[in-house]
Amino acid sequence: MKLLLSAFFVPLLFSAPMPAPWKSMPAVGHLTIDSSFAVEVRGFSDPRVDAAVHRFTARIARQTGIPIVGGKTILIVESATHGSDESYQLDISSDKAVLAASTAEGALHGLETFAQLIEPGHDGFQVPSVHIEDHPRFSWRGLMIDCSRHWMPLEVIERNLDAMAAVKLNVLHWHLSDDQGFRVESKRFPKLQQLGSDGHFYTQDEVRHVIAYARDRGIRVVPEFDIPGHTTSWFVGYPDLASAPGPYTIERKWGIFQPTMDPAREETFKFLDQFLGEMTALFPDRYFHLGGDEVDPTQWNQSASIQTFAHERHFATPDDIEAYFMQRAQVILKKYGKTMIGWDEILHPGLAPDAVIQSWRGPQALADAAKQGYRGILSFGYYLDHMNPASFHYAVDPQLDDQSSKLILGGEACMWTEFTSQETIDSRIWPRTAAIAERLWSPRDVTNVASMYDRLDAISRVLTSIGVGVNEQRMLDRIGRGAALRVLADASESLEIQGRRDARKYTSLVPLNRFVDAVPPESPMVRHLTQTAEKAASNPNASKAQIAELRAAFTEWTANDLQMSDNFLSAELIPLSRNLSNLGFIGLRALEFLADGKSPAPDWPAQQLQVIEGMEKPVAEVQLGAGRPVRILLNAISRNTSRPAEIEVNK
Amino acid sequence: MKLLLSAFFVPLLFSAPMPAPWKSMPAVGHLTIDSSFAVEVRGFSDPRVDAAVHRFTARIARQTGIPIVGGKTILIVESATHGSDESYQLDISSDKAVLAASTAEGALHGLETFAQLIEPGHDGFQVPSVHIEDHPRFSWRGLMIDCSRHWMPLEVIERNLDAMAAVKLNVLHWHLSDDQGFRVESKRFPKLQQLGSDGHFYTQDEVRHVIAYARDRGIRVVPEFDIPGHTTSWFVGYPDLASAPGPYTIERKWGIFQPTMDPAREETFKFLDQFLGEMTALFPDRYFHLGGDEVDPTQWNQSASIQTFAHERHFATPDDIEAYFMQRAQVILKKYGKTMIGWDEILHPGLAPDAVIQSWRGPQALADAAKQGYRGILSFGYYLDHMNPASFHYAVDPQLDDQSSKLILGGEACMWTEFTSQETIDSRIWPRTAAIAERLWSPRDVTNVASMYDRLDAISRVLTSIGVGVNEQRMLDRIGRGAALRVLADASESLEIQGRRDARKYTSLVPLNRFVDAVPPESPMVRHLTQTAEKAASNPNASKAQIAELRAAFTEWTANDLQMSDNFLSAELIPLSRNLSNLGFIGLRALEFLADGKSPAPDWPAQQLQVIEGMEKPVAEVQLGAGRPVRILLNAISRNTSRPAEIEVNK
Repeated sequence: MKLLLSAFFVPLLFSAPMPAPWKSMPAVGHLTIDSSFAVEVRGFSDPRVDAAVHRFTARIARQTGIPIVGGKTILIVESATHGSDESYQLDISSDKAVLAASTAEGALHGLETFAQLIEPGHDGFQVPSVHIEDHPRFSWRGLMIDCSRHWMPLEVIERNLDAMAAVKLNVLHWHLSDDQGFRVESKRFPKLQQLGSDGHFYTQDEVRHVIAYARDRGIRVVPEFDIPGHTTSWFVGYPDLASAPGPYTIERKWGIFQPTMDPAREETFKFLDQFLGEMTALFPDRYFHLGGDEVDPTQWNQSASIQTFAHERHFATPDDIEAYFMQRAQVILKKYGKTMIGWDEILHPGLAPDAVIQSWRGPQALADAAKQGYRGILSFGYYLDHMNPASFHYAVDPQLDDQSSKLILGGEACMWTEFTSQETIDSRIWPRTAAIAERLWSPRDVTNVASMYDRLDAISRVLTSIGVGVNEQRMLDRIGRGAALRVLADASESLEIQGRRDARKYTSLVPLNRFVDAVPPESPMVRHLTQTAEKAASNPNASKAQIAELRAAFTEWTANDLQMSDNFLSAELIPLSRNLSNLGFIGLRALEFLADGKSPAPDWPAQQLQVIEGMEKPVAEVQLGAGRPVRILLNAISRNTSRPAEIEVNK
Repeated sequence: MKLLLSAFFVPLLFSAPMPAPWKSMPAVGHLTIDSSFAVEVRGFSDPRVDAAVHRFTARIARQTGIPIVGGKTILIVESATHGSDESYQLDISSDKAVLAASTAEGALHGLETFAQLIEPGHDGFQVPSVHIEDHPRFSWRGLMIDCSRHWMPLEVIERNLDAMAAVKLNVLHWHLSDDQGFRVESKRFPKLQQLGSDGHFYTQDEVRHVIAYARDRGIRVVPEFDIPGHTTSWFVGYPDLASAPGPYTIERKWGIFQPTMDPAREETFKFLDQFLGEMTALFPDRYFHLGGDEVDPTQWNQSASIQTFAHERHFATPDDIEAYFMQRAQVILKKYGKTMIGWDEILHPGLAPDAVIQSWRGPQALADAAKQGYRGILSFGYYLDHMNPASFHYAVDPQLDDQSSKLILGGEACMWTEFTSQETIDSRIWPRTAAIAERLWSPRDVTNVASMYDRLDAISRVLTSIGVGVNEQRMLDRIGRGAALRVLADASESLEIQGRRDARKYTSLVPLNRFVDAVPPESPMVRHLTQTAEKAASNPNASKAQIAELRAAFTEWTANDLQMSDNFLSAELIPLSRNLSNLGFIGLRALEFLADGKSPAPDWPAQQLQVIEGMEKPVAEVQLGAGRPVRILLNAISRNTSRPAEIEVNK
C-alpha cells in the first residue's frame, strides 16, 4: 500500500500543501523544528532567495510561536544544476532538509511547501520525512484584479500578492483602466489620473513598488489598459480621443458603455504611442494587455468621419474596425518590445501571430485561437464574481486534447469588482482561488473534490495568517451586535452577480456594506456540516460524534434571533433569520427520526424538503446554504421509511 | 425622567462612548452620516487637528462602509476661547454637529467620541442629537508597556497607541530596559543595545517615530530606564557599572536579580550623566522614569569597596544607599530639565520635592508620599498581568479623600511581559484597559459594572477594527483544526501570573504558544452567558429566548470534542475539553428542571455544584470560566426546591 502512494493520497497522511505536489514519497520519521532552526543558502546569486529565506524564517516563528534564534542548519537551499523553470526538489529526513532548485522561483515555491508541511507533533513542531519532486503544469498561473470598478489601495494588492505566492500563482494581471476609473499616474498625460480617477490612482513609484514586491515573491506583473472600449475614464481628461464629442464624466454605473476610441484620427494612435511608450517603460514584463473586449459600435456607427474612414478602408463591420485598431496598437507595442495580450475579441484575420488570447468566452474560443496558432490563457470558468463554489472552478481544465495543447500557457482567475470593494475583495478571491491555483499547478488527475477541500481548509489558515479577510468581522459588527449575525453569516452564501444585478440598482456609489457583502460565496461551515450529515445519514449508529455536532448546530439555529434587527442594515435579514431558526427545528426533528429510532409520518420528509426549498429562495441577496445538511438527513429518512420491511429484517 | 438623566444612563439610550462623558444630554432627532459627510476645521493652527480630521474621515468610511466623497459640512471643529486642558464640547443636532475645544488634545477626544456615537439607524448611519460636555478627571492616564521581558516590535507599539487614543489615554510609559533586555539604541554607549538586546531594540529614528505617532494622537511618551537594580542587560556591554565583577549575560529567567549598579564609583554617575544627557534629548517629555524598584542588596553587601563607601557616608542600610543613588540620578535629570518619576521605593528622606511616585504597592504608599507633599500615580490595582477581570480594575480608584487629593496625577495600567509576547499582548491589555481608562477619565460615581461591560463590548469592536487581537485566531489554528478549539477557548480563562509561575519553569526562551496564551483573562462569552443565566433564573417563564440561547451553548459544549487532540500543544487540553462537555450535560439537565417544570432529587443541585467546583481547578494553566452560568441555574433550582410550599402557592 505504501508503495502505491500518489499525490492524491498525500493529504490524508500529513499536513497537505496546496497546490498538491507532483510527487510526494513519505518516509519514516520527521524533522523537528525548534528555536535553533536555521537555513543555509548555497550557490544562489539571486538576492531574492536570501530575502525569501529571511521572510521564511520570520514566518516559521509566527507560524509556530517559537522565537527562532537559529544556530543549527536544518534546511539547506541549494542551486540545482539541471532545470531552468519553477521546479524544485525537497528532501526531508530526520536530521535535515535539502531544497534544490535551479531558479529563485523554484526555491521560493519549495520554501512555501516546506512551511505548509510544518505541523504540531507529539513532542513539538515537525515536518514529516518526505521526498518531493514538484513543478508547475502550466507556466501562466494568474490572478486578475480589477482596480477600476472599485479602487484597491496598495495594501490590498500587497496582501493578495502574499496570498498568491502562498499558492504558487505567478502572474498578477492588473486591470488598471476601465470606464469607472483610470488608476495609474501618467506623467505624459496627467489628466488621465487627475480627472479620471477621483484621486484614486497608483503613482509610478507605487507601481514600481508593487512590481518589486511581486518579483520578490516570484510573481510577474502584467498591466492591462483596456482599449478601444471600456475607456470612458480616459475621455474625461482627453475627450478628443473619443469617437463622439465630449465632455465626458467618470462612469458610475455597471455595464457596457458607448464611449470608444476614435479609430479614424491619427492623433489617437499618436497618443497611444506616447502613452504606451511611457507605460511599457514602467512595466518591465514582456507581456502587455490591451483588453479589446466588449466594444459597443454605437459611436462608430453614428460618426460620419468614422463611417467615411471605414468605407475608404473597405471595413464591412465594426469588427473589422476593431481588428484594425488592435493591430495598430499591437504594432506600437511591438516597437516597445512587448507581446500583446487581448481578450477573445481581438482574434481577427490579420492579428500578428505572437498575440496571446485570453479567453472569457469558453474553451471553444480558446481552441479556435489555438487552431490558428495563437497562444491562449483560459479565464472562462475562473470568474470569481460569478460566486461559484471552489469545486466548480476546480473542474475547469485549460488543457486542449490535441496537438495545439502546447499553445495553452495556463489560466487566470478573474476578479471583476462591480460588486466587490477593497473591504470585501478578500472573501471573493480567497480561498476559492487556491483551488484554481491547484488546477493550474498540480497533475491533471488530481481531481478528488473532498481531498481538495481538505487542503483548502489548511490553506485557508495560511491565508488568514497572511491577513486575508482582515475586514470581515468589522463588516458584521457594523450591522449589529452579538454572535447571532455570525451564526447567520456562517449559514448563508452570497448571490452571484446576476442575482445582485436583479435585486437593486447598483452603481459605484452604492456602499457595499450590507450583509451580502460580509457573507462569502461558499460557506465552509455549511460544507463541514454537509460532510458531517453525510456520515451521520449513512450510518447513524456509528456516528455519535457527528449527530452531537449536528444537534449543537441545529440547536444554535433554533435559538438564533438577531439581537439588533431594528436598523436599516439588519431589517432585511429578519426573514432569513426566521428561516434559519425554522431550519434548525426541522434538523432537530430529523435527528430524532434518524438517531432515536422514531418514525415520522410517511410524507413528512417530502413535506419538509419542500419547506426548505422555499427557504432557499434569495433573501437580501443571499441564499441559505444551511439547508444542504438538513436535506441530506431528510433524504436518508425518506429512504429508510420507504425501504421494504424485509430488507430491514436482513440487517 | 428625562431631566434626571446622568452620565450613568447614557449607555442605555444609544451607542455609548467609552470612557463615559461627564455630561450627556440627549435631545430628539439625529444627524445622518452619508457619503457627502465633510468636516470643517476653524481656528486651529495645530496641524495635528488637520491630521486627526483626515484619519477621522477615513475611519468613518471604514466604520460605515460608505465611501466618503464629502461636499457637505456636517461637523465643525472649532477652537474654543475658554479652557486650556483636554476638555471638549460636542453639540449634535439634526443638521450639523459642532465640536469645540481649546486644545488639539480636546479636539482629538471629541472626534473619538463622535466616531463612537455613530450607529445604524432606521434609514442609514446616524449620530443621535446630544449635548456633551466632557473633560478628564485625571490629567495622567497611562499605559505602561514592558518591552524588555519580551520584545515588542514597532507595530505592536503603534497598534496600542491607536487603541489608547480610542479610550482617551494620554501617557505611554515605555519600560525600555530591564534585566532581560536593553531596548533603545544609544549612540554614546552602543554596547548597551549591541550586547544587551539580542538585536531587538528601537533605533533612535524609530523612537522619534513613536513619539511623533503618539503626539499625533494626543499621547505623551515617558521612557523608563530602571536603575540601579533591574540592570543586568546594561552590564553585558558595560560590566564596570555593576557592583560585582563580570562578565554578565542577558538574564533569561524571571524574578529579582542581584546585578546592581555600583553606587561607590564616580564613573557610574559619569556614565549615567552622559547616557541620560543623550536620552533626555531623545525623549522630549518633561517627565523621565528611572525605576528605582526592587533592589537586591546582595552585591552591595558583598562588595568591600561599597561597604567602605557606605560606612564613610554613614549609610546604615541598603535603603540609604539606594536613596543616595536615586538622588544623585535626580540631580542629573534636573540638570537636563527633567522631572524624575520612580516606583514606591524611591520615597526616602532627602528625595527632591518635585519627584513623582508611581505606586505599585498600594494606596497607602501613595497616601504616605502625598502626606510628604509628593505627587503620585496609582498603578496598584491596575496590573494587567495579574489577570483580574475588568470589574476588579474598575473598582480601584486613585483618589485620596483628604486635601492631598490634588497631588494624585492619575493612574497607569501596567503591562509587565514575563508571560506576554508580541503575539499575546493585545488580549492582555485589551479590552480591560478600557475600564481603567474610564476610571481615570469619567466621574467618580460612574461605577455601575453592568453598564461598564456594555460599553466594554462596544469599545471591543472599535479595538478590533483598529487591529487589536490580529494574532488571536492564528494562535488557536496552530494548536489544532476546526471550531472545537474556539469553543473551548471561549469557555476558558487564562490563569494569573502566580498560577503560571507555579505550573512550569518559564524563561524568556519558553515559547508562549500554548492554549493558555491564546485564551483571554476574562471571557466575554462566559460573561454574556452569565447575564443570560441570571435573567433565565430570575424568571424562567418570561425567558424563552434566554433559555434557548443557554440550551444552544450547553448543547455545543456537550458535542465539543477536540478534533486534533494528538499533538504536544493540544494533549494537555483533553481533561479541560471533557470537563466542558460534562458541564454542558449538567447545564442541559438544569434547564430541564428550570424551564420544563421537572423536579430534581433534593440534593442534586448541591451535588452538581460540587462537581463543577472540581472542574474549575486549573488545567493547562487555564480555568473553566463556563461554570459560572451553570452555577447560577443550579443555585436558582436549589432555591426553588428548598422553598416552602406555601410560598409557592402564594405566587
